[in-house]
Amino acid sequence: MLAREVLQELIQVLGAENVLTEQEDLLTYAYDATAAMKHHKPDVVVSPLSTEQVAEVVKIAVRHNIPIYPRGSGTNLSGGTIPTKGGIVLSMLNLNKILEIDQDNLTATVQPGVIIQALNDEVLKLGLLYPPDPGTVTTATMGGSLSECSGGLRGLKYGVTKHYIMGLQIVLANGEVIRWGGKTVKNVTGYDLVALFTGAEGTLGIVTEIIVKLIPSPEARKSILAVFDDVDKAGKAIASIIRNKIIPATLEIMDNVTIQTVEHFVHAGLPLDAEAVLLIEVDGYKEVVEREAVLVEQILKDEQAVEVKIAKDDKERDLLWLARRSALPALAQKRPTTVLEDATVPRSKIPDMLKAIRRIADKHNLNIATFGHAGDGNLHPTILTDERDQDEMKRVHLAVDEIFQTAISLGGTLSGEHGIGIAKMKYLDWEFGEAGVAALRRIKEALDPNYLLNPGKIVRRD
Amino acid sequence: MLAREVLQELIQVLGAENVLTEQEDLLTYAYDATAAMKHHKPDVVVSPLSTEQVAEVVKIAVRHNIPIYPRGSGTNLSGGTIPTKGGIVLSMLNLNKILEIDQDNLTATVQPGVIIQALNDEVLKLGLLYPPDPGTVTTATMGGSLSECSGGLRGLKYGVTKHYIMGLQIVLANGEVIRWGGKTVKNVTGYDLVALFTGAEGTLGIVTEIIVKLIPSPEARKSILAVFDDVDKAGKAIASIIRNKIIPATLEIMDNVTIQTVEHFVHAGLPLDAEAVLLIEVDGYKEVVEREAVLVEQILKDEQAVEVKIAKDDKERDLLWLARRSALPALAQKRPTTVLEDATVPRSKIPDMLKAIRRIADKHNLNIATFGHAGDGNLHPTILTDERDQDEMKRVHLAVDEIFQTAISLGGTLSGEHGIGIAKMKYLDWEFGEAGVAALRRIKEALDPNYLLNPGKIVRRD
Repeated sequence: MLAREVLQELIQVLGAENVLTEQEDLLTYAYDATAAMKHHKPDVVVSPLSTEQVAEVVKIAVRHNIPIYPRGSGTNLSGGTIPTKGGIVLSMLNLNKILEIDQDNLTATVQPGVIIQALNDEVLKLGLLYPPDPGTVTTATMGGSLSECSGGLRGLKYGVTKHYIMGLQIVLANGEVIRWGGKTVKNVTGYDLVALFTGAEGTLGIVTEIIVKLIPSPEARKSILAVFDDVDKAGKAIASIIRNKIIPATLEIMDNVTIQTVEHFVHAGLPLDAEAVLLIEVDGYKEVVEREAVLVEQILKDEQAVEVKIAKDDKERDLLWLARRSALPALAQKRPTTVLEDATVPRSKIPDMLKAIRRIADKHNLNIATFGHAGDGNLHPTILTDERDQDEMKRVHLAVDEIFQTAISLGGTLSGEHGIGIAKMKYLDWEFGEAGVAALRRIKEALDPNYLLNPGKIVRRD
Repeated sequence: MLAREVLQELIQVLGAENVLTEQEDLLTYAYDATAAMKHHKPDVVVSPLSTEQVAEVVKIAVRHNIPIYPRGSGTNLSGGTIPTKGGIVLSMLNLNKILEIDQDNLTATVQPGVIIQALNDEVLKLGLLYPPDPGTVTTATMGGSLSECSGGLRGLKYGVTKHYIMGLQIVLANGEVIRWGGKTVKNVTGYDLVALFTGAEGTLGIVTEIIVKLIPSPEARKSILAVFDDVDKAGKAIASIIRNKIIPATLEIMDNVTIQTVEHFVHAGLPLDAEAVLLIEVDGYKEVVEREAVLVEQILKDEQAVEVKIAKDDKERDLLWLARRSALPALAQKRPTTVLEDATVPRSKIPDMLKAIRRIADKHNLNIATFGHAGDGNLHPTILTDERDQDEMKRVHLAVDEIFQTAISLGGTLSGEHGIGIAKMKYLDWEFGEAGVAALRRIKEALDPNYLLNPGKIVRRD
């Protein structure tokens, strides 16, 4: 419970209408999109309307030593926005203005509450594109996706969120407001704090303004479906495409469990007996797209795809991508709880990782479907389970441990795009060792010595 | 002077042949490529042969509280490698192996002493490219260019060094060895320390192994020269190219002073009376290059270029780029001292910046030539002077101050690609304010509390 004095200070800064304390309001901020996590209600939810108000809220939090949790749409998948220690949730959804689209410098300046798709709808009118493309693009905010360094379907060719963040306005843990970076393509002034705050899950500072890079929107695209009777053949096809110097915009994989589930859900014509399908999109100038599509088709045939199909029009294309984008919702309907993981390996290790996941599923008698961004090596093993079944959940946790052990042993990482949050904190020293985790902790403490900003995420107090 | 004990410890770890203490040896490590900087000899220069040896040297430095300066080829331009406080220079030139080129994952793993061009010579055999392209590409090391986050001529389309660094092995200031990042395209595990160490000028840790991203080498390219009788028209042409959704690999500018000097030096056929020339290269698939070259030519004509010339063969192309690459050496011949600055603005502000530089040159009665990466907004105002002339040097310093004030007032930054080092430290609070500089200092102290790693660079002890 917050002291009445604190509430009054918050109301004075923000107005009563932007300070929520009713239990039913607080309840909706007690969790995020991560499955099977304990809920924690905050004491208060505030919605600032300006950077100055954010700074004032931080100063109030500092004075009273209250934790503060910046939050966008709460679509994150590692428990990163759950207010585990109570305190103030800072909802950024009212800071939702696109402040500028600068066509000469190919930048957009936005507030953190802008929805990713809303930005893309605007810039597309000018023939431009903001490439980061997480599955939640229609609901996730720019601030949230920056803080998680979201990836998505276009990472292979276009990179991820961090490759598009050029400048930030930040409220530090002491309430000071700073700007880093800007509209210049090159910037090596001081340490790269723009990069440090990107993906920091709101634990180092609060982002209140974002300058992003835009690119010309590709004028053409072609989508290709390839069906394989063997996961290894699909893996070899991926390697072969890259070795032939083709970098598709998107190169996705779905395993047999996913294919079956998705096909019953959307009827896209996926072959139910396929061991794996690859979904590939090439984009760019129309001449290039034509040439690359033909090359990709030939490579897929050479690599023993059972079937290769180039979408002949937008309708066929949209159906293919509907199938891919339906993977998660389709799988989520099969059991009450969907544990969506984020194991990431060098792309050459995709077949090894897929086979390991299959072994782990069999060993623990679990239903695991796997799909994901094969071109990135970013797989989403998805465990279909029921959190009320304690015995099964024990096996789920064991399986998750083994999945991450395997990813790291294959030269991969704990998280490609979902972040560490609470969910993966316990694995951090597997990847960095104790010395590495200690270095992260020293950086946290340099910028937030009292652990007030989203405490208990990424690194805990020692 | 180092205690004899310290020297003996160093010799024990590295062997006497890798520990230099002769005055004539030390002298060559007392400066870098930055003009008009005070020289400082180190006490000893050591050349480790392994990460373990680097860690041992750091531990010796910690035990005896001795500063340590990692150094590549010393081509940097902001005084970043000058051993201002004496101590140990750690030459990385013996750690010069390309450890792996991984064609499936499009990565190379290198030691920090590998020369950039040496890496590119190897990967080009496989049809691949490491895009960062600083002017010193044939002499600078991968470790040095990583630590400065070098830019160069291809920044507009391909980005700069930081966009290609995927993983690092680092020796921390306490001698611990850590790995961050790896070969995965996506990685959001913990804070982005790969990005933090990139461009940190060796002040946060010592890089001992680097994983970089490679891309397919473009199959075709075309170079275009455009001559303008007015700087504003050149500026508008730059904006117009970008607005037409063309992102050239390279988009360079030279002003009249540079043109005249370069033309007398290389006889490339540049018009002596032009106010500005643009040098543009488009690259990629051959169909795209054809199409973009035609479009660029038309845009340049529409924007009132006096002359537009597409290089018709490699010989003509090479001559154009020889002219551009000769800008600095040609200018450097005119006066004893060449102060090469690094003012960087949003690309739409290029004409404003060029005119401001001209005003500043007139005001202080100085000879300033300007050339640079117009597509990036990254200009190199180059002051031709004589460091023995104290009166002129006073005016040089005033002019440099005004150049950076102007860059910042135009939404630019202190350094696009040369770094802060010693040379620009005094300007840092113009860009970040005191609170911002304090945040940098807290990060420095989090990772190097005793200021042993390249002390006195970027941020000073408070």
